[in-house]
Amino acid sequence: MEKRTLHTILSPRLLDLYDLTNAIVVIIDVFRATSTIATALNHGATAVYPVADVERCKQLGAELNAITAGERNGQVIEGLLHGNSPAEYPSTFIKGKQLVLTTTNGTKLLKMALDQGADKIITGSFVNLGSVCRFLENSEKNVVLACSGWKDRFNLEDTLFAGAVAEKISGQFDLNCDSTLMAKQMYRLHEKDMAVFIRNTSHWHRLKAFGLENDLEFCVTPGGAEVLPLYNPQTAALTAADLI
Amino acid sequence: MEKRTLHTILSPRLLDLYDLTNAIVVIIDVFRATSTIATALNHGATAVYPVADVERCKQLGAELNAITAGERNGQVIEGLLHGNSPAEYPSTFIKGKQLVLTTTNGTKLLKMALDQGADKIITGSFVNLGSVCRFLENSEKNVVLACSGWKDRFNLEDTLFAGAVAEKISGQFDLNCDSTLMAKQMYRLHEKDMAVFIRNTSHWHRLKAFGLENDLEFCVTPGGAEVLPLYNPQTAALTAADLI
Repeated sequence: MEKRTLHTILSPRLLDLYDLTNAIVVIIDVFRATSTIATALNHGATAVYPVADVERCKQLGAELNAITAGERNGQVIEGLLHGNSPAEYPSTFIKGKQLVLTTTNGTKLLKMALDQGADKIITGSFVNLGSVCRFLENSEKNVVLACSGWKDRFNLEDTLFAGAVAEKISGQFDLNCDSTLMAKQMYRLHEKDMAVFIRNTSHWHRLKAFGLENDLEFCVTPGGAEVLPLYNPQTAALTAADLI
Repeated sequence: MEKRTLHTILSPRLLDLYDLTNAIVVIIDVFRATSTIATALNHGATAVYPVADVERCKQLGAELNAITAGERNGQVIEGLLHGNSPAEYPSTFIKGKQLVLTTTNGTKLLKMALDQGADKIITGSFVNLGSVCRFLENSEKNVVLACSGWKDRFNLEDTLFAGAVAEKISGQFDLNCDSTLMAKQMYRLHEKDMAVFIRNTSHWHRLKAFGLENDLEFCVTPGGAEVLPLYNPQTAALTAADLI
């Protein structure tokens, strides 16, 4: 039997170079959308609706009587109730509620993967690394690790997470992919000093001015929110899936 | 005084995200276009004309009474005289002659950089690493290291060369660029085992079937063809520039 393929996509601009049919696409936006999604679902949110713009966020929030949340440049958007920080979603607040979240990089990439015929779409960050790996290992599909980047540019934090997944599951896959090889090596190099190394990244420099250092450290620490966010195209929502 | 900026672009698809005005753009296509260009010029070719398609290659070759060369998938193109191997251009053959070379990845990226208003365009590979670094160090411009990749996908050999340049010159620059940081770290990791590590790349697997292993080793060995290929938009040719 042919081995499954595993590819890593370093920017949304490169997504269409890859075949997503029969593939599980992992949307990666470590700082901070996919960390926040996992945290909210792990703390009992019943669904997370990722939406691209602020108007849609307000409209859907009103329809569903849901929490609306979103940030631009590290600040809560005017007219929305909450931001894009995992720390804002403890179970005492989010349990049993629905969350409508507007983000720039991650949401756009999710819609692109959907339009391109992805078989399944999940979201991943270090906080749910174990759940993502378990889901991918137990599936029979190809895997595409899709980094959201920053406004289409390459970023390190998403690449390191792709590398972490590849490091843990790649034995099952045919690995003829230079970006996956690079991501694995970068992860190996920084697995032990992640919280220090990540302070060198562009995104850290952008966000630390907003006092978000604790937030960012949480986002790169494995296991803080072990849940599997699975996208349902019918409802346009992410919900916590049962792991086999 | 503000420091100059240094960015690394991992695929032609990402070039338009960066400002090329007041920047020197280094076109990188290690396997093998920019290695061949440096070798031909170092061995006395008077000019190298990079062209995008085979018909233009034949036409210009006839006009200039020049050597025509090009490959697709590791084979010399029918109707052209030579291939894309540095080993085909010893000084006994190429000295005093003009070369018209058609390549896919590198030529396309060079035209894109030109259209996007690059201040200067040069080409680089490990064979002329020292010349490229000296030219960039002595200039007062920003620098964009532009990797050709493979059909717009990320590749390791071009990234490693970008990392080698960044490692040697980055002290002079403001380095707020995750792709440059990654490239530098990958280069440091493999500086000592380049000829072995590079055998893991996708491109090596594609080309080794054609018996090109010696060729590929030459392309990743520093200093085999120390010359500075500078593109002249008026003549549409690369010629060996004087280093300051």
